[in-house]
Amino acid sequence: MESDGPEVRRPFRPGAPWRLGVLAEHVGAELDGDPEVVVDHVAALDSAGDGALVFLHDRRMCAALQETGAAAVVLRREERNRTTLPALVTDHPQLIFARAAGLIHAEPRPDDGVHPAAWVADGADLGEGVIVAPGAVVEPGARLGARVWVQSGAVIQAGAEIGEDTVIESGAVIGWGCRLGRRCRVEPGAVIGGTGFGFAKDGEAWVRIPQLGRVVLGDDVEVGANAAIDRATLGETVLEDGVKIDNLVHIAHNCRIGVHSAVAGQVGFAGSTYLGPGCTVGGQAGFADHLEIVGGCHFTGRAMVTGSIDTPGVYSSGLPATPNRRWRKSVARVQQLDEMARRLRALEQEIEALRGGAPGGTTEDGE
Amino acid sequence: MESDGPEVRRPFRPGAPWRLGVLAEHVGAELDGDPEVVVDHVAALDSAGDGALVFLHDRRMCAALQETGAAAVVLRREERNRTTLPALVTDHPQLIFARAAGLIHAEPRPDDGVHPAAWVADGADLGEGVIVAPGAVVEPGARLGARVWVQSGAVIQAGAEIGEDTVIESGAVIGWGCRLGRRCRVEPGAVIGGTGFGFAKDGEAWVRIPQLGRVVLGDDVEVGANAAIDRATLGETVLEDGVKIDNLVHIAHNCRIGVHSAVAGQVGFAGSTYLGPGCTVGGQAGFADHLEIVGGCHFTGRAMVTGSIDTPGVYSSGLPATPNRRWRKSVARVQQLDEMARRLRALEQEIEALRGGAPGGTTEDGE
Amino acid sequence: MESDGPEVRRPFRPGAPWRLGVLAEHVGAELDGDPEVVVDHVAALDSAGDGALVFLHDRRMCAALQETGAAAVVLRREERNRTTLPALVTDHPQLIFARAAGLIHAEPRPDDGVHPAAWVADGADLGEGVIVAPGAVVEPGARLGARVWVQSGAVIQAGAEIGEDTVIESGAVIGWGCRLGRRCRVEPGAVIGGTGFGFAKDGEAWVRIPQLGRVVLGDDVEVGANAAIDRATLGETVLEDGVKIDNLVHIAHNCRIGVHSAVAGQVGFAGSTYLGPGCTVGGQAGFADHLEIVGGCHFTGRAMVTGSIDTPGVYSSGLPATPNRRWRKSVARVQQLDEMARRLRALEQEIEALRGGAPGGTTEDGE
Repeated sequence: MESDGPEVRRPFRPGAPWRLGVLAEHVGAELDGDPEVVVDHVAALDSAGDGALVFLHDRRMCAALQETGAAAVVLRREERNRTTLPALVTDHPQLIFARAAGLIHAEPRPDDGVHPAAWVADGADLGEGVIVAPGAVVEPGARLGARVWVQSGAVIQAGAEIGEDTVIESGAVIGWGCRLGRRCRVEPGAVIGGTGFGFAKDGEAWVRIPQLGRVVLGDDVEVGANAAIDRATLGETVLEDGVKIDNLVHIAHNCRIGVHSAVAGQVGFAGSTYLGPGCTVGGQAGFADHLEIVGGCHFTGRAMVTGSIDTPGVYSSGLPATPNRRWRKSVARVQQLDEMARRLRALEQEIEALRGGAPGGTTEDGE
Repeated sequence: MESDGPEVRRPFRPGAPWRLGVLAEHVGAELDGDPEVVVDHVAALDSAGDGALVFLHDRRMCAALQETGAAAVVLRREERNRTTLPALVTDHPQLIFARAAGLIHAEPRPDDGVHPAAWVADGADLGEGVIVAPGAVVEPGARLGARVWVQSGAVIQAGAEIGEDTVIESGAVIGWGCRLGRRCRVEPGAVIGGTGFGFAKDGEAWVRIPQLGRVVLGDDVEVGANAAIDRATLGETVLEDGVKIDNLVHIAHNCRIGVHSAVAGQVGFAGSTYLGPGCTVGGQAGFADHLEIVGGCHFTGRAMVTGSIDTPGVYSSGLPATPNRRWRKSVARVQQLDEMARRLRALEQEIEALRGGAPGGTTEDGE
Repeated sequence: MESDGPEVRRPFRPGAPWRLGVLAEHVGAELDGDPEVVVDHVAALDSAGDGALVFLHDRRMCAALQETGAAAVVLRREERNRTTLPALVTDHPQLIFARAAGLIHAEPRPDDGVHPAAWVADGADLGEGVIVAPGAVVEPGARLGARVWVQSGAVIQAGAEIGEDTVIESGAVIGWGCRLGRRCRVEPGAVIGGTGFGFAKDGEAWVRIPQLGRVVLGDDVEVGANAAIDRATLGETVLEDGVKIDNLVHIAHNCRIGVHSAVAGQVGFAGSTYLGPGCTVGGQAGFADHLEIVGGCHFTGRAMVTGSIDTPGVYSSGLPATPNRRWRKSVARVQQLDEMARRLRALEQEIEALRGGAPGGTTEDGE
């Protein structure tokens, strides 16, 4: 039942051969071993074979390292004595492995140009090396920087601007007038620039407050599958440089997500909330509207954030799942908490009375 | 780091010039000032310049009002003395501003007709002024009322009916046989009429219960980006007139959402639940199946609704995020609550014993 | 306000006539009544008319059974005496009804073949009876088994393999290299094979860890509208045979969902979590990463699962919504729990002191 069992020996995407000496230079690691050794794919330590580059991420994997069939390994300096395999030695093995995997398994691209089965408006402005795949649509006034890749079935609405080397994956929609930086990646089905959820009451009914702003993504931003980032009412909803957004995340109008913050799946931000730089947010967390969250905060999964935060740290909420019978009891007891507190107070007073205020007695008064 | 800082002076969507006298008449406000003054866009109070119409939504903004470069302002009667700017005076400034913004910044439409890069089945029935954009698909038997706009990449499945002036945005899918009213708006990627999640057990396996009904939207309904509204098993899943649904909301088979109710992002409704009219639901709230919720209920974000409700009011649940160390302690204590309650009871009995049932004593008995 | 009121007499999808004797044989039920009676649609008991097959799912419906206009009924043996209607008698009425509805209301299919308004790459391999609808895209190297149906606007990326009789609904995206079994159903807008959310820290910034694996679906798997299933980093993200996934579910890289497990709307799984066979998961539940959940677990809606589970059973968490005033009080009290526990302990010690350790006294010590 292991997902990465020994029978899966290679990643699905093929790799290209790299000599270890050249690779070490490109990824910024120190080589210890034969520079002529060739690796042509990355693999998990316990299922690696000929030509595999592996990664020692955990001391507990040292046993597997003895038996691996890998050609080379990425490891920390202090683990170098664990193996005689050629090694890329580094203080940041995960980072070096990520870079190496990106080089060895570079993403294949179809031929440049607008496919005959795509549709691109006359007024659209396409940089050199742009790819527009079958079934994709680029509306009037859109501007695509060099090497932008619009995958099958994606839609770039009127007047949107997309920076160099950005990839818009299948079925994603970039709304009118939105602006994306360079090297961004918008995954399948994501919507950048939906209409913000803003209405004014007209008696019992709701009247839309026109959402006239846009969404702006910095450079190196990634947005996950079927995520939804709403345009601003006025001005801009902003994801700053390097922000990473996972699948099915909801970001409402006028939010701003600070540089290099990372937001996991199904998180939601209500309108006009600001998340500072360098934050991480666990899955299914939720933020109320108009909050100011200082940089360097970390929210565990399902955290329910209802107030602004001015102190960096780790924040959490929610009660973990327990057997249903016990959970029912806890729910009932929480409902009784107010009454329990009053009974506790009454007891304290009675004891005070019983003691007759004797000098030896002390009471805590926490209320 | 402000999203609407002074450098953003105009909304992205251009506006058209309106004389204030004419505008006042169209939006239903009283004009106090020169009717010949022209406004050609709306703006935020603190970044407004020539030609801007602004909106005083908050008394704290009165200082900004002194310095604004705006041409005119929407405000309440009791704030009229705060400025000598020409004003649209009203008891409902947000509503008047919403109407004015909608007039000044009317949505641009492409030319009418079926684009050559769209596909419309022979058997489909299109009213006058219908737009079908590149990459959109309209399947056999679909009926589109006058001025319906099917944006790029949207799909109208077989036999769906769409009322006049409704807009189906890019990549949205309207399922077979579903019926939408007039002036609805379905945002990018939303799915109206997915298959309900209904299965019967066959030993260990599940057999699909065919989902044979449809989804019906009243007039003026809006459905957010990547939301999913399932068709009924039999009969109809219904969103009544004026219902507003935000991004990534899940509405299961056979639910019914009452007239003018508004549901924020990532809320979920399990099957056959009825939400009465005029309710509001905060983000990430969840409703169990087969509930009956009376009209006029308001649920704060993340509310977990497990039972029917017959009294209008505000309902809430969930514990707000706290620093992780404190949260861990609270979680542990909640697990001990049952034991604490028993210890409290024991103490009460002991005190009763110590007092020997003295007539001066009183006890509260809450259990 | 009932969604299935008497005015809705027939399901939207038309049915075909079946003689009851033939139908009984096909669904595996015992016939008690005239085998020549014809049914041509299924209906709800309280709104059924001529030609309807109904289903007695609940003893409370027996009154409605007396008055129904249905032609025949599916019921349990022990309810046979409740009606003289022709009946399909069974120990599993819901299952028999599901099968019968599937036969009577078989899904209509358009003509086989690649529609001229679709695009299929030269290198793609299509089995007999495949349908590719207008606006759909099949990229190079994709392999579609016999009778696969790719609906309007769906995208099959390069090298994906799809088993016989599987349906990919409108706007769904099957990512490069993913493999789907037979008789699967991917609902509109679902994304199979988005990029996993994996990054390595590079100073303040994040560097993508290439996601080189794929998603594998067994046979008879269903994935709901706008759900997102990420490909593995290496190896495979797996949904085993018979798994049912509802709308807007998020399944991160390298998860594995066991055979016949069913997951309701908006549930999220963080990376590398294993859910055993035969589990059910209520809506909006969430699972942390790297968990091992034994088969036969049932999670109620909104359960927050933070640890592995080795004992089958029912698990729950979360506090149900209460009136806001009471909720605020409970939240405050939970924050005071630690202090309350300390005060309780102090009281116990004081009473011990007051009693002078009398032999008749007993204390519970729960800490």
